[in-house]
Amino acid sequence: MKPLNAAYPPITLKPRMGRRAQNGHPWVYSNEIVMDQDAKALLPGSLVRVMTDGGEVLGVAMFNPHSLIAARFLSRDANATIDRAFLSDRLQSALAMREALFAEPCYRLVHAEADGLPGLIADRLGDVIVLQPNSAGIDRLADDVVSVVQERLSPRAIVVRADSPVRQLEGLEERVEVIGNLPAGPVRFTENGCHYLADPVGGQKTGWFFDQRDNRRFMADLARDQSVLDVYAHTGGFGLAAARAGARAVTMVDRAEAVLDMARRAADANDVATTCNFDQGDAFGELEARRDRGERFGIVICDPPAFVRTKKDLKSGTRGYRKLTRLAARLVGTDGWLAIASCSHHVSGDVLLEQIKLGLRDSGRDGRVVRRSGAGPDHPIHPALPESTYLKFFCLRLD
Amino acid sequence: MKPLNAAYPPITLKPRMGRRAQNGHPWVYSNEIVMDQDAKALLPGSLVRVMTDGGEVLGVAMFNPHSLIAARFLSRDANATIDRAFLSDRLQSALAMREALFAEPCYRLVHAEADGLPGLIADRLGDVIVLQPNSAGIDRLADDVVSVVQERLSPRAIVVRADSPVRQLEGLEERVEVIGNLPAGPVRFTENGCHYLADPVGGQKTGWFFDQRDNRRFMADLARDQSVLDVYAHTGGFGLAAARAGARAVTMVDRAEAVLDMARRAADANDVATTCNFDQGDAFGELEARRDRGERFGIVICDPPAFVRTKKDLKSGTRGYRKLTRLAARLVGTDGWLAIASCSHHVSGDVLLEQIKLGLRDSGRDGRVVRRSGAGPDHPIHPALPESTYLKFFCLRLD
Repeated sequence: MKPLNAAYPPITLKPRMGRRAQNGHPWVYSNEIVMDQDAKALLPGSLVRVMTDGGEVLGVAMFNPHSLIAARFLSRDANATIDRAFLSDRLQSALAMREALFAEPCYRLVHAEADGLPGLIADRLGDVIVLQPNSAGIDRLADDVVSVVQERLSPRAIVVRADSPVRQLEGLEERVEVIGNLPAGPVRFTENGCHYLADPVGGQKTGWFFDQRDNRRFMADLARDQSVLDVYAHTGGFGLAAARAGARAVTMVDRAEAVLDMARRAADANDVATTCNFDQGDAFGELEARRDRGERFGIVICDPPAFVRTKKDLKSGTRGYRKLTRLAARLVGTDGWLAIASCSHHVSGDVLLEQIKLGLRDSGRDGRVVRRSGAGPDHPIHPALPESTYLKFFCLRLD
Repeated sequence: MKPLNAAYPPITLKPRMGRRAQNGHPWVYSNEIVMDQDAKALLPGSLVRVMTDGGEVLGVAMFNPHSLIAARFLSRDANATIDRAFLSDRLQSALAMREALFAEPCYRLVHAEADGLPGLIADRLGDVIVLQPNSAGIDRLADDVVSVVQERLSPRAIVVRADSPVRQLEGLEERVEVIGNLPAGPVRFTENGCHYLADPVGGQKTGWFFDQRDNRRFMADLARDQSVLDVYAHTGGFGLAAARAGARAVTMVDRAEAVLDMARRAADANDVATTCNFDQGDAFGELEARRDRGERFGIVICDPPAFVRTKKDLKSGTRGYRKLTRLAARLVGTDGWLAIASCSHHVSGDVLLEQIKLGLRDSGRDGRVVRRSGAGPDHPIHPALPESTYLKFFCLRLD
């Protein structure tokens, strides 16, 4: 047997509970662990050695006795030391992959388990890095993470957005911290060559959603000379890309004036202000009002916030996608395009497609799916966590 | 009640069997139909009106009393006349969509049910059109289809590949026919700006697989300065795109000398012959031999023919993807890329990912999925036939 790293206390799996972890799964659930007094006494986020009941050490993990996901593996090496060098290697590996994928320094830099840093999200908006430490383990390492990010990337500022609701599952408190010199106002960056603005301190999540990058490019490629309606426009992700790609007119709708204002300023930065309109309003209401006014668009894009946040919402939220499709399809002109996205974790792609099919029928329109996709390659998937692919995107061509 | 189109005989659904068709499904199964003497007497491929047992006409369909898929809807209009004008409209609609999607006249032009022409496949290789009439109904209309294709597109030649095995399910005989002036030797065309050769008369299916277009571009974007191994290279789809994108060296392996020869000639046409190698051989054997020789590549691409052709092959064929992953992963260098595709209809994306995960573990490598996708947008999906998405594609980044 390999010598143990005596630095980390052991936790022990119940009999026959080691198989999944041995097969590469990055998590151990609390009911798989012998929760004795020693285990319960460990501070949330402690580094531990995970042992089978036979004494085999499966690796080093971050442990939280109060979380359903009790252990998250950092290394399968029983002797791994989790220090700044370790974190720096992981960061470098994630960085090298993004540099191979993208010409611009704007992407999801670290995507948690899939990048070997469980619970950590990092988005890179040029010279501003936004971190989300979403598990107790990575929260305890947050200072070291900040330190290696500074060392590797020398960003102008790091924003620690330790305010995600998922932190409650880990018993963590909320905080937002800015390290370095963050200029006042939103941050400017690029995606697919288009200029955007985001608010990394006060915006949703990290302030930007890089997951739609490829889908935005796909829609922009269809947009030349088209009229485009971007519902749930947020800071203009789809709409500005379409305008920049030569759309005749782009209308961006959002209920929040603050994000529309960023979209408006970014339109100026892209020299497309004259083709862009910004309408503050509720998506469903706007779709109905435009239908009543007889409006038609060559492209309608709907990228709503999650309609289903908990399993309790499943039925009503799922139906929301049907209604959204019905209302949006009616605004699509002949031979036009309709894009519907969902970031509801509980709604699978097949379920969403069924709702889209029903909504299309409700609208009296026929169509076909030309694109079914998810997040871009900077949101990698851990092979043992295929269910972590939360984003679903469909583009249809309507008759 | 609307007046009936008396030109087409009726077939009648059994009680309560109309719901799915009313909800937009394009097929009626034989066990849902009252198969009386009149129905059985209809010639395979006859045009019919589909009626509920209550007398409601659901539309006009192509009917084959000998096929499990007995009726395929052409129109939901009870009075539709299926003539050259009808076919021409459908073709024009399919064409307009591809012209909106692609700059080059090279794509899947008609993708069967999803383009409103059930059973018909048409690929456009520039000025050569390859047709696959795969159902009895479209086979009976084949002359009219040829005629409207000539009228709309004036191709130099039309190749009718009525030799797909699926025709057996429809009781159809095999034939291959060339209409027009097809030059001797393979046809030259472009995809993603890369020159390719295909044999539309003797090659697999239509001679080319446009479904991988987007995946080829994705892999090519990663290929600059890389060494690339393209197993199951066929006529060079992935390999030549990588070479053209600046790969340092590309090795294409296929067991068929005829397709490698086309890849070789296309390498010349792309001015990349000096970076390309062509090795005739069996994929698994080549992967093992290269492992024994200690070879490593920055990118390994495996796009095999279907390992699972029937449900009987499911277990052994599915395991084939695990073995393929194991052998291929061992040849991928540190921080390299591995692409695995499957066109096995019976193997779902989730099942394939599970095999990839297991194969990766067998190889002792760690990795993450950076791309999970299917066929490109010229292979649209009928919203009621999501299971028709046969192509699965995964690209992984390995540690």
